[in-house]
Amino acid sequence: MGKLILVRHGKSLWNVENIFTGWTDVDLAPEGTAEAKKAGELLRKNKIVVDICFSSYLKRAIRTNWIMLDTSDMMHIDCLYSWRLNERHYGAWQGRNKDEVKKEVGEEMFWKIRRGYDTPPPVLTTDDRRHPKFDTKYNQLDPAILPVSESLKDTRKRAVEYFFECIAPQLVKGRIVVVTAHGNSIRALKAQIEDIPPTKISKIEVPTGAPYVYEFDDNLNLTQHYHLE
Amino acid sequence: MGKLILVRHGKSLWNVENIFTGWTDVDLAPEGTAEAKKAGELLRKNKIVVDICFSSYLKRAIRTNWIMLDTSDMMHIDCLYSWRLNERHYGAWQGRNKDEVKKEVGEEMFWKIRRGYDTPPPVLTTDDRRHPKFDTKYNQLDPAILPVSESLKDTRKRAVEYFFECIAPQLVKGRIVVVTAHGNSIRALKAQIEDIPPTKISKIEVPTGAPYVYEFDDNLNLTQHYHLE
Repeated sequence: MGKLILVRHGKSLWNVENIFTGWTDVDLAPEGTAEAKKAGELLRKNKIVVDICFSSYLKRAIRTNWIMLDTSDMMHIDCLYSWRLNERHYGAWQGRNKDEVKKEVGEEMFWKIRRGYDTPPPVLTTDDRRHPKFDTKYNQLDPAILPVSESLKDTRKRAVEYFFECIAPQLVKGRIVVVTAHGNSIRALKAQIEDIPPTKISKIEVPTGAPYVYEFDDNLNLTQHYHLE
Repeated sequence: MGKLILVRHGKSLWNVENIFTGWTDVDLAPEGTAEAKKAGELLRKNKIVVDICFSSYLKRAIRTNWIMLDTSDMMHIDCLYSWRLNERHYGAWQGRNKDEVKKEVGEEMFWKIRRGYDTPPPVLTTDDRRHPKFDTKYNQLDPAILPVSESLKDTRKRAVEYFFECIAPQLVKGRIVVVTAHGNSIRALKAQIEDIPPTKISKIEVPTGAPYVYEFDDNLNLTQHYHLE
């Protein structure tokens, strides 16, 4: 019987400063490091023996995973990474203070983009230094697939595709899988697994550093799900 | 054209204290952490873009790899682990001071075991708490394959098997591969690649934290090899 454990990365330096982060590769805040340790202690306390880990290309998620594995004495577990587990790409809003953006675009547009389903923020221009093509991490990918802004719908599409291509085959084999990712990529996976309508995805609460377990039968039917305690 | 980069882990706490370590899961000494950072700086300086990493089940190697990837901004590179890249298993000598063992068994036997090719140290008994079966990391392996002491020949056999099964296929695809491992597992790989007779393996010097590059053509013929500078 396969088990999927979803973990949202611990608080990052920009979470703390109320800045739109998206694909900006900001590290964990000290508070986030503590959350990651606590997640590792929960794995250890519950005697969970992980078979394989997946994470995004962003260091706040990867470091959360590392700290969690170190704390639970599972540093030797294979880890695979994909940009498709990255946070939603916030386009030209990345690096900007959320309150300032709200003032600029007005309450209605702000919430439509931030918590709506299919409206992306303004795109990054191709010469903008924040464009993913300037980040060596994405050098080996086809530039045509690199987003310059995403709606939640866009994020959902690529996260769910990755789930079925790479994660689900592990679950079908009965493996215990940890996925350490981001608010919106995790919301997308939760909606898919719990059969929540896409338009309600943005309402799903995902606390940072709190491992959430899904248990499946051999046909990948969900049997139970719960927060690890 | 594939590239293989071998890195011996930074100095561990027991390297510093002159104790036989083997499979004992000792962490890096502060000096070893600094060596790992320097290895990461060399990767960055030489603009090496790694495709995949392999390491052992032991945290002194894994942490060296993590620090190296963190320093060179490559935390998102896939990492696969195997016990077959572990250090030589030192049997009942594990955890014992090297000078004390030498006094006890005499110079001749000491060097025959330590630097010889096919003489293992005394085995661990099955109820010895140092037996790998008591370590949860090895729980999912067949207990029959877990060593209780190894000659250099034994270590060489499993490390080279792993090389051909898992690492060489990546090199043939033209990938850039980092293997972070241990004095004896790296000696075994170097001897295989450089065609050094097995009986001379123990003479191969492998400095800690110094990335060593092998370049191959499409048929996995060695074209050049050098220390990264």
